[in-house]
Amino acid sequence: MSQTTTAQTTTAQTRRQPTPLNGVDTPALFATIDVVKAQPELAAFQFRATNRWISGTNSRTRIESFSGAGGEHTHARVFEYDADHPAVLVGKDEGPLPVEFLLVALTSCLTSGIGNIAAARGVTLTEVTSTIEGDMDAQGILGLSDRVRNGYSRLRVHFTIKGDAPPEKLRAILEQSKARSAVFDVITNGTPVDISVDAG
Amino acid sequence: MSQTTTAQTTTAQTRRQPTPLNGVDTPALFATIDVVKAQPELAAFQFRATNRWISGTNSRTRIESFSGAGGEHTHARVFEYDADHPAVLVGKDEGPLPVEFLLVALTSCLTSGIGNIAAARGVTLTEVTSTIEGDMDAQGILGLSDRVRNGYSRLRVHFTIKGDAPPEKLRAILEQSKARSAVFDVITNGTPVDISVDAG
Repeated sequence: MSQTTTAQTTTAQTRRQPTPLNGVDTPALFATIDVVKAQPELAAFQFRATNRWISGTNSRTRIESFSGAGGEHTHARVFEYDADHPAVLVGKDEGPLPVEFLLVALTSCLTSGIGNIAAARGVTLTEVTSTIEGDMDAQGILGLSDRVRNGYSRLRVHFTIKGDAPPEKLRAILEQSKARSAVFDVITNGTPVDISVDAG
Repeated sequence: MSQTTTAQTTTAQTRRQPTPLNGVDTPALFATIDVVKAQPELAAFQFRATNRWISGTNSRTRIESFSGAGGEHTHARVFEYDADHPAVLVGKDEGPLPVEFLLVALTSCLTSGIGNIAAARGVTLTEVTSTIEGDMDAQGILGLSDRVRNGYSRLRVHFTIKGDAPPEKLRAILEQSKARSAVFDVITNGTPVDISVDAG
């Protein structure tokens, strides 16, 4: 009981006197959370991209703007990414495979969360690295088997986290990041996708 | 009945005399499919990435090698991608948001499929462009509501496809791409993710 009280007091103190940490503007983060708490309609975001086929399996995706927090926003610069298949899958290797961009999305989302949550909990991080691997049986995408799924059968992520907190506190930061990760949610639980087309 | 027979004959002819089209080495694509059909163990692929936290919500993911088709492969070059949160989400906008990389993965996967399938069906493409948008209520990731999911509630993709085939044939190519898309499968159906950590 006294342990619980102590923990609550610590949390309250952290929230009362946040200081920037790990490159996170912790006061701004808490202020943002408070503003959205008061006006939940500000939480509505829409992210967008456009893609243009170049040749073969090579295409280029452009990310420029999004809406959220009650307005339209333009990124600091336009981000463009080529994707392609490698030679062994009959492409020109002009970019990673589309399935490799899923690995970028998942590791970076969990890592962003670790940065934010560690700062909110007053933990200074010295290292966050991760490796991710995904298993895929290409019989699915090659149309050779209806019993094999097209996508990854399983993904594994391994983190190394170092900082000025005991191992259990660092592990708890990762757990909280996973519990609040947008990409982890989409990849583990799935999201409905509507596809429409103008053809001709 | 005769229509079915005609369709089968056309398919068989296409497979007998494939020619490169749309930048796709169609003979190599069919040869690859035949080799994997004969040796299904060659279909086992593993894709990988490593991620390193930089500061705040900014991290960098590196993609370099993968295994598949019975061996190890190195990409033509190392691909590195920064992800970050934008200012409105208290980041420095050093890269797209992790959830925006999901948009790259999905549009580029469907588009790669369209390139391959059109070539396999003898259709010359002149344009494949798409826009994608995803709705997200940030109350989830900000920890303000347990009733709101963390990830996208819905994604919408709109394609424009032009080529030397009637609209229904172009639409069927998109349908087949969707039916064989690795990323569409992962995003709509979900994939198990194992996370482990060394902390301290």
